[in-house]
Amino acid sequence: MPKDAALDALASLLGERLSRSKPDLAEHGRSESHFPTTPPDAVAYPESTEEVQALVKICAEHDCPVIGWGAGTSLEGHGLAVQGGVVVDFSRMNKVIEIRLDDMDVTVQPGVTREALNEELRATGLFFPVDPGANASLGGMAMTRASGTTTVRYGTMRDNVLGLTVVLADGRVIRTGTRARKSAAGFDLTALMVGSEGTLGLVTELTLRLHGIPEATSAGICAFPDMGSAVTAVMETIQMGIPMARIEFVDAATAQAFTAYSGMEMSQAPHLLVEFHGSPESVAQDAERFGEIVAEHGASPFQWSAREEERRALWALRHNGYYAILASRKGARAVVTDMCVPISRLASAVEETQADIAQSCVPGPILGHVGDGNFHAILLIDPEKPEELDEAKRLSHRMAERALALGGTCTGEHGVGLGKMAYMEAEHGDGWQVMGQIKQALDPKGIMNPGKLVPQG
Amino acid sequence: MPKDAALDALASLLGERLSRSKPDLAEHGRSESHFPTTPPDAVAYPESTEEVQALVKICAEHDCPVIGWGAGTSLEGHGLAVQGGVVVDFSRMNKVIEIRLDDMDVTVQPGVTREALNEELRATGLFFPVDPGANASLGGMAMTRASGTTTVRYGTMRDNVLGLTVVLADGRVIRTGTRARKSAAGFDLTALMVGSEGTLGLVTELTLRLHGIPEATSAGICAFPDMGSAVTAVMETIQMGIPMARIEFVDAATAQAFTAYSGMEMSQAPHLLVEFHGSPESVAQDAERFGEIVAEHGASPFQWSAREEERRALWALRHNGYYAILASRKGARAVVTDMCVPISRLASAVEETQADIAQSCVPGPILGHVGDGNFHAILLIDPEKPEELDEAKRLSHRMAERALALGGTCTGEHGVGLGKMAYMEAEHGDGWQVMGQIKQALDPKGIMNPGKLVPQG
Ligand SMILES: Cc1cc2nc3c(=O)[nH]c(=O)nc-3n(C[C@H](O)[C@H](O)[C@H](O)COP(=O)(O)OP(=O)(O)OC[C@H]3O[C@@H](n4cnc5c(N)ncnc54)[C@H](O)[C@@H]3O)c2cc1C
Ligand SMILES: Cc1cc2nc3c(=O)[nH]c(=O)nc-3n(C[C@H](O)[C@H](O)[C@H](O)COP(=O)(O)OP(=O)(O)OC[C@H]3O[C@@H](n4cnc5c(N)ncnc54)[C@H](O)[C@@H]3O)c2cc1C
Repeated sequence: MPKDAALDALASLLGERLSRSKPDLAEHGRSESHFPTTPPDAVAYPESTEEVQALVKICAEHDCPVIGWGAGTSLEGHGLAVQGGVVVDFSRMNKVIEIRLDDMDVTVQPGVTREALNEELRATGLFFPVDPGANASLGGMAMTRASGTTTVRYGTMRDNVLGLTVVLADGRVIRTGTRARKSAAGFDLTALMVGSEGTLGLVTELTLRLHGIPEATSAGICAFPDMGSAVTAVMETIQMGIPMARIEFVDAATAQAFTAYSGMEMSQAPHLLVEFHGSPESVAQDAERFGEIVAEHGASPFQWSAREEERRALWALRHNGYYAILASRKGARAVVTDMCVPISRLASAVEETQADIAQSCVPGPILGHVGDGNFHAILLIDPEKPEELDEAKRLSHRMAERALALGGTCTGEHGVGLGKMAYMEAEHGDGWQVMGQIKQALDPKGIMNPGKLVPQG
Repeated sequence: MPKDAALDALASLLGERLSRSKPDLAEHGRSESHFPTTPPDAVAYPESTEEVQALVKICAEHDCPVIGWGAGTSLEGHGLAVQGGVVVDFSRMNKVIEIRLDDMDVTVQPGVTREALNEELRATGLFFPVDPGANASLGGMAMTRASGTTTVRYGTMRDNVLGLTVVLADGRVIRTGTRARKSAAGFDLTALMVGSEGTLGLVTELTLRLHGIPEATSAGICAFPDMGSAVTAVMETIQMGIPMARIEFVDAATAQAFTAYSGMEMSQAPHLLVEFHGSPESVAQDAERFGEIVAEHGASPFQWSAREEERRALWALRHNGYYAILASRKGARAVVTDMCVPISRLASAVEETQADIAQSCVPGPILGHVGDGNFHAILLIDPEKPEELDEAKRLSHRMAERALALGGTCTGEHGVGLGKMAYMEAEHGDGWQVMGQIKQALDPKGIMNPGKLVPQG
C-alpha cells in the first residue's frame, strides 16, 4: 500500500509526533456536529513550516491525503479524512511570532487560538476582532473564512488576513500578500486561500490586521413581542447608519435555552444583544438612539451598560449559545444551518424558516449575526433516530434553497465541508467548475483535503 | 490569418460596432503614461453580456487576443494590445441596472464611470466611495483593484465589489458572489477576479456596496516644515484611531505645481489634505484633535471647514494633481511609481525616495494616499530624450525594490500592466508561478489580455 509507505516515511520524519494511537485517531475523526466519526490513518504534529513541507512532499510522492486540523470546531465535517490519510494537527505550531504595534499587525503560527492571541495582545491596546464564538485556531478560521459577532463592524477573516505562508500540494512554499495595507500586484492569492478549507494547501503562518481596543464600549439587551419586529429593528438600525460593533438575534426558544443553561433570567421572547464601540459619549449616544428605534418596535426598554462585567456576562451567554441549545434536548446532536441573505430579505427569511421548523418534529432554536443577514437554526436530533436526521436534512435543504432564492448564500460563515457540497452547483453554476479547475491546476493529484469543496470525480 | 477570420466573424456579429478606423485604433492604443502607442487590430463595442459571450467565443475559436477597455485611464499600459487582437470597449454598456436602497448595493454595467454612478445616486443618500481621482469605469476599477483618496476609510475595490458577471476565455458566463454581505461558500472567485486586469475574463456586470453619505463632513489643509514631520503626523493620527475619511500628502514640488495649475495659493512646503466623515459634532472634534497633533509637528494651523464649496475646491485640486504635475514641465510624459509600505516604514520610504529624486536629472513631485502607506512619484520625462526615460526607469526600479525591502508592494493601486511585470517574481516568489497556473487553467490559449500579469512563455 502506498499509504503505508507514506506513513513509514512520515514516522521517520516526525518520530513520536506521528501518532497512530486509537484515541488520537478517534479524536481527529470526530466533528462538532452530526457527522459520523471518521478516523484518519495517522495524526501528524509538525513544529515548523519546513516540517510541513517535508511532510507534504512525502504525501505527494505516495498520493496520500493530507488534511489540516486546527481546533476541530468546524461544523460541517471539514476536517474529516473521508478518504483516509494523515491529519496534520497544528496545535504545536502555536506561537505568536511578532506583534508590530506601529503597523497594527501580527504574525502568528496557525495553531494560535483567537483567545490565546487576544490574551497575548492584552497589554498592547490592540485586539483581533474576528470572533466565531468557539475558541478556534487562526489557521482554521482563515481556512473556513470565519466571521462572527463583530463582523458587522470589523469584517470577516477575508478582511483581516493580510498574508499567508502556504505549503502547496507539491511542497512549494508561497508567501501571499505583503504587510502593506493594500496591493494591486496581481491575483489576490491571499483571498483565494482564505476560505479554501485546506483544499489548496496547508497554512503555516498568518499575518493579521489588529484593531485598537475602543476607548469605550456599551452593550445591552432587549426583548421583542415577536421575531418580525426584532428583525425590522435591526434593518432600520443598519439603514440609519448607527455603527454597531455587534448585533445578535436569539429567538424565544434560544432565550429559554439560555435561561436554563446559565441561570440568567430571560423572558421567553425574541431578543437582540447589541454592542457599540467608540468614545464614552458616542457609545452612550448610540445606545440611546438604538433604544429609541427598538421602542418603536414594541421592545422592552433597552437595558445597556458600559461596565465590563455586565458586558462579559452578556457575551458569555451568547458564546455558550450552541452548547446551551444542545443541552436543551438531552443527548441531542445538531444539524446547523447557516443562511445569509441580503438585509432586506432577513425578516422573511427568518419568518419562513421558523414556520418551517414549527411544522416539523425536530426542534430548531434560531440565533444569528443578523447585522450581516446571517442566522443559524440549530436543528436538534436524537442520534438514535435516523428519521430525525432525515427530517433535519430536509429542513436544512429547504433553508439553503431559500437562501439562494433570496439572493443569498447557503453558508454565511461555516463553510462547505461535507454538509454544503450539495448546494455549490446551485449557488455558483459554472463558477463551481471554475473552482474545480483551480483545484486541478494546483493539486492535480487531489491530495489536499480530498472529497471537499470542489466537484468530485 | 486566423485573426482576419476572427475579425470577419466579429464584423458580422457587431456590424458597425466593430471598428477598424485609424483614429479609433489609435485612441485604443494609447495610455495615460509613457508607453508607446500600440493600436489593436479592431475595437468592439458590445451592448450586452450575450454579445460579449458571442465575441469571446469567436476569438477563442481563432486564437485572437481579447482586451477589455474601460475609460483607458490606467497608468501601466494595462489595456495595450501588445500581441494585437480586439479591444473590447465597454462604453456602450453604461447602464445602472438596479439600485437597492434597503440593501445599500447597486448592480451596474462595467462602462458606468464612478462619477456617473455617484450622479445617479445623488438623491438616494448613498454613494460609492472608491475614488481613484480619474473618472475611471467601474469595470476598469475592479480589474485594477483600484483605490484612492477614501480607501483609508472605505476600502479598495476588493472591499466594495460584492459580485461580478464574467465571460471566461471559453465563453462560459459565471456569476461570482451573492448579494449577501458575506459568504463562506468555496473559493472567493470575486476576489480572484478583482485585480486580474482582464487576464481571466471580461466583466459584464458588477454588484457594488454603497455607503451612506455622511451626515457631516469636515475637510482641511495644513503645511509642514518638512516631509518627515508630515508623515509622522499621519502615522500618529492613525495610531490614535482618529477615523479619517481621506488623508493625502503632497510634497513641496507638488504644492508648487498645484499653485501654478489652479491659481489657489499654497506655500511651497509639504502639505496634508484631510477629510472627516460623521456627525456634525464628531467631524468638528476629529478636526480639532487632528489640529492638535499636527501643531505638535510644527504644522501651520489646520484650516478646516464643513462647507461644501470649500471642500469641493480642495478635492478638485487633489484630483487634478496628476495633470497639474504634468503641466509643470512642458511637453512632459510621466513614469508613475506606486509604492505602498507598512505605515511604520512610510517616513523612511518617502525620505529615501525624495533623496533619490533630488540626485537625479528627472523631476519627480510626490503625492499619495498616505493613510494607506501608499504614495506616487510622478517622474517627468521629455519624451524626446530616451536617456530621461532610462533614468526614470532606474529611479522607478529603485523605488519598487525599496517597497519590497520594506515589507510592502511594488504597486499599491495602479496594478501590474506592463510597467510592474519585472517585480512580480521578486514580490511573489513561487506565488507568481501559481498565478500562471491559474491563468493556464482558465485561459489555456492565452487569449485574455495576453502579455500581462502572469509569467510569459
Ligand atoms: C459553538 C460554536 C460556535 C461557532 N460559531 C461560529 C461563528 O459564529 N462563526 C463562524 O464562522 N464559525 C463558527 N463556528 C465554526 C468554527 O468555529 C469555525 O469554522 C472555525 O473557523 C473553525 O476553526 P478550527 O480551528 O476549529 O478549524 P478546524 O475545524 O480544525 O478546521 C477547519 C478547516 O480548516 C482546515 N484547516 C485547519 N487548519 C488548517 C491549516 N493550518 N492549514 C490548512 N487547512 C487547515 C481543516 O482541514 C478544515 O477543513 C462555531 C463552532 C462552534 C462549535
Ligand atoms: C489622473 C489619474 C489619477 C489616477 N489616480 C489613481 C488612484 O488614485 N488610484 C488608483 O487606483 N488608480 C488611479 N489611476 C489609474 C486609473 O484611474 C485606474 O487604474 C482605473 O482603475 C482604471 O480604470 P479604467 O476604466 O480607466 O480602466 P482601463 O484603463 O480602461 O483598463 C484597465 C484594465 O482593466 C481591463 N478592463 C477594463 N474594463 C474591463 C472589463 N469590463 N472586463 C475585463 N477587463 C477590463 C483592461 O484590459 C485593463 O487591463 C489614476 C489615473 C489617472 C490618469
